[in-house]
Amino acid sequence: MAPALTQGRALELAAEQLRQRPWQALALEPAIPIDALPSPALLLDAAAFERNLLRMADFLGARGKGFRPHAKTHKCPLIAHRQLALGAAGVCTAKVSEALVMINAGIDRVLVTSPVVTPDKVALLHALAADASQLDVVVDSDLGLELLRSGASPDAPVGVLVDVDVAMGRTGTRDVDRILRLAEGAADTPGLRFRGVQHYAGQVMHVEGYERRRDKSLALWERVAELVEQLSRHGFAPEVVTGGGTGTFDIDCDVDCITDLQVGSYIFMDEEYLRIGGSGSRRFDAFEVSLQVALTAISQPRDGAITVDGGYKAFASDSVEPVPLDLPSVRFRFAGDEHGVLILEPGAQEPLLGSRQRFVVPHCDPTVNLYDYYWVCEDGLATSVWPIAARGCSW
Amino acid sequence: MAPALTQGRALELAAEQLRQRPWQALALEPAIPIDALPSPALLLDAAAFERNLLRMADFLGARGKGFRPHAKTHKCPLIAHRQLALGAAGVCTAKVSEALVMINAGIDRVLVTSPVVTPDKVALLHALAADASQLDVVVDSDLGLELLRSGASPDAPVGVLVDVDVAMGRTGTRDVDRILRLAEGAADTPGLRFRGVQHYAGQVMHVEGYERRRDKSLALWERVAELVEQLSRHGFAPEVVTGGGTGTFDIDCDVDCITDLQVGSYIFMDEEYLRIGGSGSRRFDAFEVSLQVALTAISQPRDGAITVDGGYKAFASDSVEPVPLDLPSVRFRFAGDEHGVLILEPGAQEPLLGSRQRFVVPHCDPTVNLYDYYWVCEDGLATSVWPIAARGCSW
Repeated sequence: MAPALTQGRALELAAEQLRQRPWQALALEPAIPIDALPSPALLLDAAAFERNLLRMADFLGARGKGFRPHAKTHKCPLIAHRQLALGAAGVCTAKVSEALVMINAGIDRVLVTSPVVTPDKVALLHALAADASQLDVVVDSDLGLELLRSGASPDAPVGVLVDVDVAMGRTGTRDVDRILRLAEGAADTPGLRFRGVQHYAGQVMHVEGYERRRDKSLALWERVAELVEQLSRHGFAPEVVTGGGTGTFDIDCDVDCITDLQVGSYIFMDEEYLRIGGSGSRRFDAFEVSLQVALTAISQPRDGAITVDGGYKAFASDSVEPVPLDLPSVRFRFAGDEHGVLILEPGAQEPLLGSRQRFVVPHCDPTVNLYDYYWVCEDGLATSVWPIAARGCSW
Repeated sequence: MAPALTQGRALELAAEQLRQRPWQALALEPAIPIDALPSPALLLDAAAFERNLLRMADFLGARGKGFRPHAKTHKCPLIAHRQLALGAAGVCTAKVSEALVMINAGIDRVLVTSPVVTPDKVALLHALAADASQLDVVVDSDLGLELLRSGASPDAPVGVLVDVDVAMGRTGTRDVDRILRLAEGAADTPGLRFRGVQHYAGQVMHVEGYERRRDKSLALWERVAELVEQLSRHGFAPEVVTGGGTGTFDIDCDVDCITDLQVGSYIFMDEEYLRIGGSGSRRFDAFEVSLQVALTAISQPRDGAITVDGGYKAFASDSVEPVPLDLPSVRFRFAGDEHGVLILEPGAQEPLLGSRQRFVVPHCDPTVNLYDYYWVCEDGLATSVWPIAARGCSW
């Protein structure tokens, strides 16, 4: 008994810390000019953000597809509530801790998109199900299913989606026998419900060129459709077939078996997606850059270079470099955790020391993870603060 | 008047949020096995950490040099208190927000190592000086000095160090006239004190091979020593000459003019430093890996690969890849924000699903920035939780 109790205790400590986080908006009255915010500051352009929200909802609605936006992008219950209000089927979270923050803030339809294979997190999932109208989790292993079965309660059923992977090689399975076994095991367990299938092909999202991306994504979904077909033939017709992302929503919407798209980055956009947009996407320019980081020019180490006060702690560094929004002919180079150096081409406008500069972020999700809140801006003024309540929720 | 008040208000909101953060230790009784912590978990091996602390203090003490450890590494007032107890001259922070967290937690000697050039942050510095026995900040521009002069108060003097850069090109200046002007301006202002010089050469820290690193570092310090000499000739003899880091402490300790070393990573070690240690450092193996991240094996996408539950949100991705501690012949590959894939060589031991695996972190400072607390461990058990109270303090 003792080890199990101890195990639960560590997770409960971590969970309690998350439950105490504020998640509601703080209005700023009077509003504060962007140039008066302490930098680095994460800015959310409310108008562009709202247009992005509506465009995706309209686009998919017109094609009869649902959307189940990924909250790993924004980590913000206020944004999740807005997405549900626009008709989302629910939101996705990558981890159980993110699901806890969302459900704690009243988001009542959540899908956890990573397999959970430890008893403490499974126990928390079962507990969270009591506070949600629909809590789903993916499974891709017999161990995962076995753990989910233990502790399942018909009073607070947990939905199970089989995580299907045909090519990516991260999580999920393509083993037909296993897929059928997991579906059957979920369907046969009081307290669990077999809900369907998830398929996410992260490797396709940033393929350059719409046609190439389309060919790759549809080829994968063809194989998924065959597996869905087999499940149906065995009496496990999926009620949900979910997947895709901002890189493929305008491709995957043509796949018959899909019920909803797990779009995430469309609300913000980032430099990674802007780059593929410029190389052949049909509909990619539909979304605007609503997320920016404001930095301050703090030093001039030499002619042609200005140091700003943000580096690896201001931007995720897993992909491309941040791009200055207001300074043509200027490149940002990382210069450690706390600094970047702007490299000015000859003749480029030189930012003054003390001036604020705005940047497009390289990769939105892990960049958001570095901040505690968004400064929500309208017409150059910050009008409210939205907590990033699920920041750092990696467990 | 209105804009200035508004500016102060934004910073005050951000500051208040930091002041409310808990920073004291939470004891875990009974202790919790590492394998029962929710993963990803940031682990601090208390015994190795304590040995690292003592070794640096002893090494520099024996050579008559002080140390002013950089709190940007640990972001944890509890660790700063321990360093002060071992004789540190004070701690460094990269930004004003970090200084606020430290001073709020009773750390009373702080040097802010980045120039501050906006009125709101300068006003906060002046306010913080009242709660510290010695608050210092670097300056490298006339604008920076001018702002520091405004609002300076003899009741709570702020110390000023000139940030000298001879080669790195990030912050600091090598302009003799400006260096003298800044020193004189600080010395002449009631409420400011000229304290000395900072020189940090980040580009030298990870040069492979002790002799090469030594040649490079000493060549730079020779130029700094000339500038120090000039300051002294003009009546501004520095009381503090501070700089260096974990990559050069055993080199820079031989530089006469240096008073104290800004060592940071020595308390934890990381893969970046371990790699240069293996290629010719004399004294580098003195430090042990005390910082680790524990992940869980959650999926097996194919033979020879196991997916673990940590990616860009579990490790900083600006340098090398994390290294498995307990699994020889296994490589970690990033697979997105939330996952990594372990690549097993043929015949390598295969981790079981659900098992915990520990990793050396690639780069300690920005990795720590991803977590809210350390699980402090002794003999395989977590015995307390230490809040990373200055996590995310990039402003």
